[in-house]
Amino acid sequence: MKSISKAVISRLPRYYRYLGELKEEGIERISSGDLSERMHVTASQIRQDLNNFGGFGQQGYGYNVSYLYDEIGKILNLDKEHTMIIIGSGHLGMAIANYANFEKRGFKVIALFDKNPEIIGKKVRNIEVYDIDSLKSYISSNKIDIAALTLPKEQATKIADDLVEGGIKAIWNFAHTDLELPSDVIVENVHLSESLMKLAYNYGEIENK
Amino acid sequence: MKSISKAVISRLPRYYRYLGELKEEGIERISSGDLSERMHVTASQIRQDLNNFGGFGQQGYGYNVSYLYDEIGKILNLDKEHTMIIIGSGHLGMAIANYANFEKRGFKVIALFDKNPEIIGKKVRNIEVYDIDSLKSYISSNKIDIAALTLPKEQATKIADDLVEGGIKAIWNFAHTDLELPSDVIVENVHLSESLMKLAYNYGEIENK
Repeated sequence: MKSISKAVISRLPRYYRYLGELKEEGIERISSGDLSERMHVTASQIRQDLNNFGGFGQQGYGYNVSYLYDEIGKILNLDKEHTMIIIGSGHLGMAIANYANFEKRGFKVIALFDKNPEIIGKKVRNIEVYDIDSLKSYISSNKIDIAALTLPKEQATKIADDLVEGGIKAIWNFAHTDLELPSDVIVENVHLSESLMKLAYNYGEIENK
Repeated sequence: MKSISKAVISRLPRYYRYLGELKEEGIERISSGDLSERMHVTASQIRQDLNNFGGFGQQGYGYNVSYLYDEIGKILNLDKEHTMIIIGSGHLGMAIANYANFEKRGFKVIALFDKNPEIIGKKVRNIEVYDIDSLKSYISSNKIDIAALTLPKEQATKIADDLVEGGIKAIWNFAHTDLELPSDVIVENVHLSESLMKLAYNYGEIENK
């Protein structure tokens, strides 16, 4: 397989979502033109992106939805199960723990952590909330692929260091800060405030017209 | 003021965050070099970005943190109050409603909506949860700048149409779908699944090394 550019990779999750919807609708084949209409991306962009994998599209036949869905899933590493822990069991942590669709895609939440004694010991979809003080020992005795951090920034920095020390290589960071971690640790940030500010800016632009 | 490129605009929320932290730490001035070290962005990029506004940096004096913070805030439209409603009062909706920092930046949540009778009538930080059936009438009698949509995609599409019909021009969309709305409506998407897939991909790349 050719190496795929970062720009293409960043677009794959969206292709994957649309292909998943097509599958659910029972659609077996789709042309780049039809996909273009659905996704509001030019057909030539779609062909260029999907040709990266080679052999998916056949002239006149369109793309095999199910095959393309599976192949993109493999590229995105979704054909394997990923174990995930969530640190911070407030509303955001609970929202992630409750989102069954993640599990359908292979992301299996195996533990939640919190420091609030009222929550510790409770279960969410059969996933237990553990005392955050037991985090280090939990990490050392379980295989964890991903840690989601839904803590205030003051705590997130310290906990992130503990995670890295424990050997965790992938952090899904919701804390409102950029974590300073070794370069072999993957961090994916979800900065909600920044998203909201972008919305406010664009909204202001329209208002001022 | 010169017109500012989209690329620069997209970086402003991050500058704003760092400047806010500097302010909190009581730092009054910062050089592009020091800011560069904190933000892991080159000093020349910082100078280029911030020179867009003109007159902020003085050779040898560095940037006036507070002034720059306020100016970027104005550009991001954060010097005005924005009223926001949240549709969907599950964990994600509650997480947003509870995030006091949004309010500090001028985003004032004035109402939540849900269809669950067990939640309707309850209050979160003094914000009432209303029956989603009353959404249309609420919109027609209140000034709403932003609507956050934290509903499953099946319901989000229909509700988004109602919002637009009611005159709302800015939607913060957490539903796992792309809303098809008129071009004068601003949509800012937070697609958590896609973020998680990106993490899984990057993590897989490291694992396979």
